[in-house]
Amino acid sequence: MAKEITSREEDYSQWYLDIVKKAGLADNSPVRGCMIIKPHGFALWENMRDALDKMFKDTGHSNVYFPLLLPKNFLEKEEEHAEGFAKECAVVTHYRLKVDPNNKGKLMVDPEAKLEEELIIRPTSETIIWDTYRNWIKSYRDLPLLYNQWANVMRWEMRTRPFLRTSEFLWQEGHTAHASAKEAVEETLQILDVYADFAENWMAMPVIKGVKTPNERFAGADETYCIEALMQDGKALQAGTSHFLGQNFARSFDVKFLSKDNKEEYVWATSWGVSTRLIGGLIMTHSDDDGLILPPKLAPQQVVIVPIPKPSPEIMEAADSIVKQLRAKGIRVKVDDDDSKRPGFKFAEYEMIGIPVRIGIGARDLAEGKIEVARRDTKEKNSIPTEGVAEYIQNLLEDIQQNLFNRAKAYRDEHITRVDTFEDFQKVLDEKGGFVSAHWDGTGETEDKIKELTKATIRCIPVNNPLEDGLCILTGKPSKQRVLFARAY
Amino acid sequence: MAKEITSREEDYSQWYLDIVKKAGLADNSPVRGCMIIKPHGFALWENMRDALDKMFKDTGHSNVYFPLLLPKNFLEKEEEHAEGFAKECAVVTHYRLKVDPNNKGKLMVDPEAKLEEELIIRPTSETIIWDTYRNWIKSYRDLPLLYNQWANVMRWEMRTRPFLRTSEFLWQEGHTAHASAKEAVEETLQILDVYADFAENWMAMPVIKGVKTPNERFAGADETYCIEALMQDGKALQAGTSHFLGQNFARSFDVKFLSKDNKEEYVWATSWGVSTRLIGGLIMTHSDDDGLILPPKLAPQQVVIVPIPKPSPEIMEAADSIVKQLRAKGIRVKVDDDDSKRPGFKFAEYEMIGIPVRIGIGARDLAEGKIEVARRDTKEKNSIPTEGVAEYIQNLLEDIQQNLFNRAKAYRDEHITRVDTFEDFQKVLDEKGGFVSAHWDGTGETEDKIKELTKATIRCIPVNNPLEDGLCILTGKPSKQRVLFARAY
Repeated sequence: MAKEITSREEDYSQWYLDIVKKAGLADNSPVRGCMIIKPHGFALWENMRDALDKMFKDTGHSNVYFPLLLPKNFLEKEEEHAEGFAKECAVVTHYRLKVDPNNKGKLMVDPEAKLEEELIIRPTSETIIWDTYRNWIKSYRDLPLLYNQWANVMRWEMRTRPFLRTSEFLWQEGHTAHASAKEAVEETLQILDVYADFAENWMAMPVIKGVKTPNERFAGADETYCIEALMQDGKALQAGTSHFLGQNFARSFDVKFLSKDNKEEYVWATSWGVSTRLIGGLIMTHSDDDGLILPPKLAPQQVVIVPIPKPSPEIMEAADSIVKQLRAKGIRVKVDDDDSKRPGFKFAEYEMIGIPVRIGIGARDLAEGKIEVARRDTKEKNSIPTEGVAEYIQNLLEDIQQNLFNRAKAYRDEHITRVDTFEDFQKVLDEKGGFVSAHWDGTGETEDKIKELTKATIRCIPVNNPLEDGLCILTGKPSKQRVLFARAY
Repeated sequence: MAKEITSREEDYSQWYLDIVKKAGLADNSPVRGCMIIKPHGFALWENMRDALDKMFKDTGHSNVYFPLLLPKNFLEKEEEHAEGFAKECAVVTHYRLKVDPNNKGKLMVDPEAKLEEELIIRPTSETIIWDTYRNWIKSYRDLPLLYNQWANVMRWEMRTRPFLRTSEFLWQEGHTAHASAKEAVEETLQILDVYADFAENWMAMPVIKGVKTPNERFAGADETYCIEALMQDGKALQAGTSHFLGQNFARSFDVKFLSKDNKEEYVWATSWGVSTRLIGGLIMTHSDDDGLILPPKLAPQQVVIVPIPKPSPEIMEAADSIVKQLRAKGIRVKVDDDDSKRPGFKFAEYEMIGIPVRIGIGARDLAEGKIEVARRDTKEKNSIPTEGVAEYIQNLLEDIQQNLFNRAKAYRDEHITRVDTFEDFQKVLDEKGGFVSAHWDGTGETEDKIKELTKATIRCIPVNNPLEDGLCILTGKPSKQRVLFARAY
């Protein structure tokens, strides 16, 4: 083996960190809680971003860019929003450094360059965007505004993990403005569908669409919808959220419009986002003890060709021909012609970084018109004829994409457990993990108490959840539907 | 006219601000010196970014992402770099706000959340990147590293103008590491060529490639190369820079490698960047008193179809057919079927936002198998047969692209004036503007003195500048070559 990583069984958390590092996705940085996204990780993010961006544009959204810094008073305007974010804000207080007169070669903050009002590095941009929408919206003719931005944001986190929770992260944040509550709710749900579509059909990560309880809502939202995924260790991951903000931000920032019937009304709002956190979800949905596994649709390289045992003129000629055929079908392929490393070493490397398909070309096989094809997801190897290789690989990539989804969905479905007592609830959480479907009395107090006792939270009330009379697992009070609990990232 | 803007002759500076605002490119923000990039402006930036990104990838570069914040001490490590940037740094000193106990509903900086060491919002990322490269580079086998990032940066500017000079701006910054000075210089020049290629062949903006004088070098560079463009008002614009950093950052951050012959050596570096400033250059290269003019290759929409005087079933059917034919050729086209606005109003709007080609479809023309095509650059209109419209438009877009470049190049070439006396030098600057090609004694003192007297700076010493004996226009001392002076943005 080229590189070894901790096995999942031994230590899932360390396995995750090993994958992040050894698959070349990210590195630690000298700045607390911030990571460096390395070329392989960033190429993956670019593919995710581009696919999502196209989906946003296909549903009528445009991109914009708002400033990184927010005046401190903006955060004060929406009370719940302020409470939700004030505790984790990086604050800019000065705009200049100067040479330290008492410390040769050192710089100090110039006390004369203190800002009159402190600026906050955006933890999210509702405030500055709604402050601006006030100038952009006068009449119903100006609506809807369907804008999105790709940006970095900062939330000062105490316990961080690469991709899953970092102080700075990359994300997209959509901010739309509408003339009616109905339209805004439709937008919120449309985006929820876009997110679920992306998660399932690009990331091959099955998700449950649902709505959050009031306790778990975004600070400033009337309703928060989410997609929830299940990781291999039985913990849930909130993978994306779409908020119906009602008229809260419009009221706080005084954004009114003249309606068709000439009445002045507050504008209705949504906001929605997914982030580099998705990369953490991708890793923990598919990967194994040999390294990263990537769904073909998002893999920066889909196919690698390895000469066996090393490059020769015949092998390279065959490789070039295959590359041409694959590229003609839009398949991302590269040839590894480095002759300083042995095939076994290369195989392990490519398994580690998660290239979906590996083609081995050896002189003897080639003489028989054959090549060896190995798929990363199942590690199956097949000897196939060079004739028709492009069709074969194209089908194989589709098959891998589908297999990854099916495998993850089977695991997820097996890990939704219905329980009716608190004892069973705890037992399932401790012994099996996954989502637990249970009755709950609908109060925030009970939710808090369950969290305190078990570390499980209500992940969501699934969309189109069937009604069913029952009794709360903790308080025994009546309940009208089951909700999904889990321990979560 | 739908909207009016100040004419260039009346007030070039106000004309620029009017274009930015009325063409929907950017808006002012509540944060000092920061702008909001609006949908049309951002779509333009996306096209620029995507074209450049492909050029970087085609020359072997990968994208990465480094943290927004830099520890203050990083800036101290390279002395010139510190001097260059310390004066304009936004400084993060705290990581939490709290409710102000003496001021209901207000937030204050939590004095207990003071950082041990202040963090700086990156003005550029050489420091954190070279601090990291120390861990990534051990041997010549790890070289070269050819990385780039697309990011926001912040330099606290006192006088700002949208796109041209803003406190926060978007850019790309390439940071490469090499085993030899020769390789690093080659990289620096390769990127200079990429920038010039992009400026001329995408932006249709002619540029002069050159090297900066020591006075104008990037803080921490051994040599700064640049592309310089000329705006319509006779002022120059530095449109991109590519720096050979020597071993300066490797020394400051102790980045060494084991060479092929087993010696420990410091790594050689380059860095290079272009920013949203290019949008300012694009505006001031092509646009006119009716609004923005965009080169077709970068225009978010290349063609707009306007029904005359308003949509009808026949007209919309013809429009749909033309849209299909144009899209099949990859042309970005939209139909304006809004029947609440008259054609004249729409024409003015589309001229303002710079759509290169407008197609008018009227019932009478249509009956004769004809449509009207207007080009934005020359405002020429032609009646053309609907038969073969796609080929016609494709050729027209290419012609517009070329015409914009030719027009700008003719203007630029007319505005390079050779002078041999200081009197002529001042006269050309005041009366004609543009680049002034003059002899200079090669000293920073003379350069400073000329700047003080005339506000003109040495823009560059052109690449492959011919040698020519002469006398410095200010001091009369001997000079071996002419250099290009100009007043600049």
